[in-house]
Amino acid sequence: MSSLHIDLNADLGETTAGNPVADDAAMLHLVSSANVATGFHAGDPHSIADTLREAVAAGVTVGAHVGYNDPAAFGRRFIDYAPADLTDEVTYQIGAIDALARAAGTRISYVKPHGAMYNTIVRDTEQADAVIAGIKAFGDLPVMLLPGGVAIDSADKAGLTVIREAFADRGYNPDGTLVSRRLPGAVLTNEEDVVKRVLQVAQTGAITAIDGSVISVDAQSVCTHGDSPGSVQLLRGVVKRLKDEGIEIRSFI
Amino acid sequence: MSSLHIDLNADLGETTAGNPVADDAAMLHLVSSANVATGFHAGDPHSIADTLREAVAAGVTVGAHVGYNDPAAFGRRFIDYAPADLTDEVTYQIGAIDALARAAGTRISYVKPHGAMYNTIVRDTEQADAVIAGIKAFGDLPVMLLPGGVAIDSADKAGLTVIREAFADRGYNPDGTLVSRRLPGAVLTNEEDVVKRVLQVAQTGAITAIDGSVISVDAQSVCTHGDSPGSVQLLRGVVKRLKDEGIEIRSFI
Amino acid sequence: MSSLHIDLNADLGETTAGNPVADDAAMLHLVSSANVATGFHAGDPHSIADTLREAVAAGVTVGAHVGYNDPAAFGRRFIDYAPADLTDEVTYQIGAIDALARAAGTRISYVKPHGAMYNTIVRDTEQADAVIAGIKAFGDLPVMLLPGGVAIDSADKAGLTVIREAFADRGYNPDGTLVSRRLPGAVLTNEEDVVKRVLQVAQTGAITAIDGSVISVDAQSVCTHGDSPGSVQLLRGVVKRLKDEGIEIRSFI
Amino acid sequence: MSSLHIDLNADLGETTAGNPVADDAAMLHLVSSANVATGFHAGDPHSIADTLREAVAAGVTVGAHVGYNDPAAFGRRFIDYAPADLTDEVTYQIGAIDALARAAGTRISYVKPHGAMYNTIVRDTEQADAVIAGIKAFGDLPVMLLPGGVAIDSADKAGLTVIREAFADRGYNPDGTLVSRRLPGAVLTNEEDVVKRVLQVAQTGAITAIDGSVISVDAQSVCTHGDSPGSVQLLRGVVKRLKDEGIEIRSFI
Repeated sequence: MSSLHIDLNADLGETTAGNPVADDAAMLHLVSSANVATGFHAGDPHSIADTLREAVAAGVTVGAHVGYNDPAAFGRRFIDYAPADLTDEVTYQIGAIDALARAAGTRISYVKPHGAMYNTIVRDTEQADAVIAGIKAFGDLPVMLLPGGVAIDSADKAGLTVIREAFADRGYNPDGTLVSRRLPGAVLTNEEDVVKRVLQVAQTGAITAIDGSVISVDAQSVCTHGDSPGSVQLLRGVVKRLKDEGIEIRSFI
Repeated sequence: MSSLHIDLNADLGETTAGNPVADDAAMLHLVSSANVATGFHAGDPHSIADTLREAVAAGVTVGAHVGYNDPAAFGRRFIDYAPADLTDEVTYQIGAIDALARAAGTRISYVKPHGAMYNTIVRDTEQADAVIAGIKAFGDLPVMLLPGGVAIDSADKAGLTVIREAFADRGYNPDGTLVSRRLPGAVLTNEEDVVKRVLQVAQTGAITAIDGSVISVDAQSVCTHGDSPGSVQLLRGVVKRLKDEGIEIRSFI
Repeated sequence: MSSLHIDLNADLGETTAGNPVADDAAMLHLVSSANVATGFHAGDPHSIADTLREAVAAGVTVGAHVGYNDPAAFGRRFIDYAPADLTDEVTYQIGAIDALARAAGTRISYVKPHGAMYNTIVRDTEQADAVIAGIKAFGDLPVMLLPGGVAIDSADKAGLTVIREAFADRGYNPDGTLVSRRLPGAVLTNEEDVVKRVLQVAQTGAITAIDGSVISVDAQSVCTHGDSPGSVQLLRGVVKRLKDEGIEIRSFI
Repeated sequence: MSSLHIDLNADLGETTAGNPVADDAAMLHLVSSANVATGFHAGDPHSIADTLREAVAAGVTVGAHVGYNDPAAFGRRFIDYAPADLTDEVTYQIGAIDALARAAGTRISYVKPHGAMYNTIVRDTEQADAVIAGIKAFGDLPVMLLPGGVAIDSADKAGLTVIREAFADRGYNPDGTLVSRRLPGAVLTNEEDVVKRVLQVAQTGAITAIDGSVISVDAQSVCTHGDSPGSVQLLRGVVKRLKDEGIEIRSFI
C-alpha cells in the first residue's frame, strides 16, 4: 500500500576525452533523474549525447548540469564571474544540451547547478540572480537546489519552480548545512544508513542531523553518487531496499 | 527600376577574452546577415550574446557560424574528426547560440560552417554528411555553402535548403574555385573591383574569373569581411555604390 | 650629466589565434622589458616564440608574465585556486616560456604575475606564497610586483629579488594604491602627465598622488601600455621626451 | 646468468580534473620509464608534478609525453598543424615538464610523442621534422619512436639519439607495422603471450609476427599499459615472470 515515492538524481555525462567518471550505464538503471554535464565542467558533445540517448532508453528524466567553465578543476573552485558572463554561459549551456536532448528524443526537464556554482549561489546573491536569469532566458525550467540558500529566493522571484534536494550520503548539521568533508560524519558509507536517510526523506520529508535533531528539508529529490565502483554497488543495494519498502523511485516531473 | 537585391554576409561575434576581431558594430550597419561565432573557433557566450543583441537592433539576420573546436588556431586547420563527434558538436553549437538568440529576441535563421570545416566539407563526404546531420538534428535550417562542393549534395539529400554564396573580394579560377592566396589575383583590394563583383552577382548570378571567362555561381549571398579597418572602410564604399545602383541589400530569408 | 635611467615594461606576446592584442613590434622599440604571456591568460607557443625572437632582436629583456589558467577572461578574474595547483602552474609556465626563450637565444630574466593573480597576491597570503613557491621551484628569478602587498613579504622570505614597479598612466591614492577605474583621475591620458610621472619616478623614486601628496614608491620599473593605437602613440611621445631629458631607458637587469 | 635487461615504459600522468586514467602508483612499481603527460593531451601541472614526485620516489626514469594540443580527444586525432606551431608547442611542453621535474628532484631524460602525433610522424616528414626540431630546440634529448618511420630519419639528421620501442601487447604484421585494432590478433590479452613477447625482445631483439615470421625490431624499450585494472594485473604477472627469468627491468638511460 503506497503512493510513497522519491526521485533519485545523480551526476552523469561527465566522460571527457573518452575517460569515464561514473558508470553511467549502471546508474541509469538506478536513478530516475540524470544531471547531465554540459561540456563546461566536464563532458563533450558526443559523450553527452550518448548519455542522453541512454537516459531516453532507460526512461530517466534529464536535466542540464550547468557549471563554471573550468574543466581543469572539474568546475569545483569559485570563479569571480561578471554576472552577465555567467547568465549568458548558463543560457548557452542549456541551449546546447537541450538541442542534443531533442536529437535524442527528449527534452531537458530541469537545471541543476554544479560544484562551485552550486555552492556559491547558496550565499552569493549576485551570482544566484545571474544563474537564475540565465535559466529564465532559456525558458521556465525547474531548478534543483539545496534548501535554504539565496538561490531559492532568486528562483522564487523569477517564478521558477524549485526542486529541493537532499543528499543520500552526506551528514547534516542541525542548521541544514552539510557536515564539512574535513569532519567525522561527513559521508555515510553504510548501506543501512543511506537506506534510512532516503526512507526518512521519502516518508517524512525530514533528515536526522548528526546531533540527533530532526530537520525538515522538504526534498523532492535525493542526490546519489556513482563515481566509484563502491558507490554504484551501495546504491544498488539501497534501490533494492527502497523497492522492498514499497517506495517508488520516480522523477519529480 | 529594381527588384534587384543581394544579401551581404560577414563573420561576426568573434570577440574572445575581450579582444575584438572585427568591428562588429560598424559591420552590422553594412551587412544583412551575420555569421555569428558559437564559441568553438572564437567568441564566448557573453560576446556572442552582445553581437546577437546588436544584430537584432540593426535588423540583421543571424546565422550560426559553426566550426571545429579549435580556438587555438581559430578553427583554421583540418582536424580528423570522428563523424559522430562532429555531428554532436554541430548540434551543440546551434542549440547554444539559438538559445542566446532567443534570449536576444530573434532566432538562428541559417548555419554557415567556418574555416577548415567549410573547406573540408567541400571535398570530404564523411565530414560533409556529419556536419549536415548535426544541423538536421537541430532542425531544418538553411545552410550557407560554397557552390560545387560535396556538402551541397549532403544538404540536398538531407532536405536542407542551400544558400549559395560568392566572395566579394576573392579572385575566382575558371572552375569556380578560389584563387590560392599564394597566387596573384587572390584578393580584390580595390573598391571598384569589389563593387563590380557584387553587382555582377546581384544582376546576373555570374562571376568573371581571372582568365576573363564568366562562370555561373547562382549565389544568394555575398561574403564580405570586416576584420581590418581597411576592409570595413572598403565595404562602406561598396555598400554606398550598391545603393546608388539601386541594389537593395537584404537577407535571403 | 646623467646616470639617470629607468626601466619601461609592457605586457606583450598576448596574440592569440592570430589576433594581436598589442602592437608588439612597435612596443619592442620603446620599452626595455617585455612581460611575455605564457599561454595561460593569452598567447600560444608560436606567437610567444615570435615575440621572444623579436625581443632578442630589439635587445629587450624578457620576463614570464604568469597568470591564471583562464584564457576565456584573459586571466582577469579571481579564481579560488588550491595553492598547490597554483604553485605547479607557475613553475610550468616559467619552464615553458624559458625553453622558448632559450630557443630564441635568451633567457627569462624575471617573472611578473598578471591580472587577477597580480591583484590577488597583493592581499592574499596563501596565493602569494603559492606563486612565490612556484617561481622559487623554477629558480631564483626576480619578481616584479606592486609595492606594498603581501607578495613582497613572500618574496623576501623566499629570498627572491623584488622589482618594484610604478604605473605610467594610473592615478595614485595617497596610500599608494591605484585610483579605482570607476573614479575620476584613474587614468592619465595626457602625454605631459605621463612624462612627468616617469620623470618623477626616475629622478626621485616618488609619485604625486591625486591629492597632491608625494608618496615614495622606490620603483625600478614603470609599467606602460601598448594595447591601443593611442597608447602606443602616447608612449612614443613619452620615450622621446625622456631621452630629451637625458633619461636612459634600460632594463633593471 | 645474465646481463639481460629491458626497459618497460608506460603512459602516466594523464589524470585530468582529478580523474585518473591509469593507476599511476601501481604502474610506477612495475615499469622503469614513465612517459609523463605534459598537459596538452591530458594532465595538469599539479597532477603531472605529483606523478613526477612519485616517479622520483620509485626510481623511475621520466620522459616528456608530448602531444597535440587536443585534450577534447586525448590527442588521438590528426590535426593539420603548421610546422612552426608544432615545433614551438613541443619545445613549450618539454620546458614546462622539465621545470616540474627539476622541482621534483629529477630531469626529463627523453621525449616520446603521443597518440596522433606519434602515428603521424611515422609517415609525415613535415610534422616529423617539426617535432624533432622542437625537441632539438630544448636540448639533445633522446626520442622514443616506433622503428621504421620517417621520424627516425629526422632524429638521425638532427643528431638525436633514438630509443626504439616495441609493444608488449600488440600483434605485429610481417612488415613491422601493428595489426589494426579492427582485425583479430591486434591485442595480446594473455599473460603468457605478453611474457613471451617481452622475453623475445629482451633476449633476441626480435618479434614473431602474426604469420609466424620473425622480424627484427632492435628495441631498447617495451611499451606497456596500465589504463585498466586488468592491464595492471596482467603487467604485474609479466614483471614477476621476467624477474624469474633473470631479466632485469631497467631504464635505457
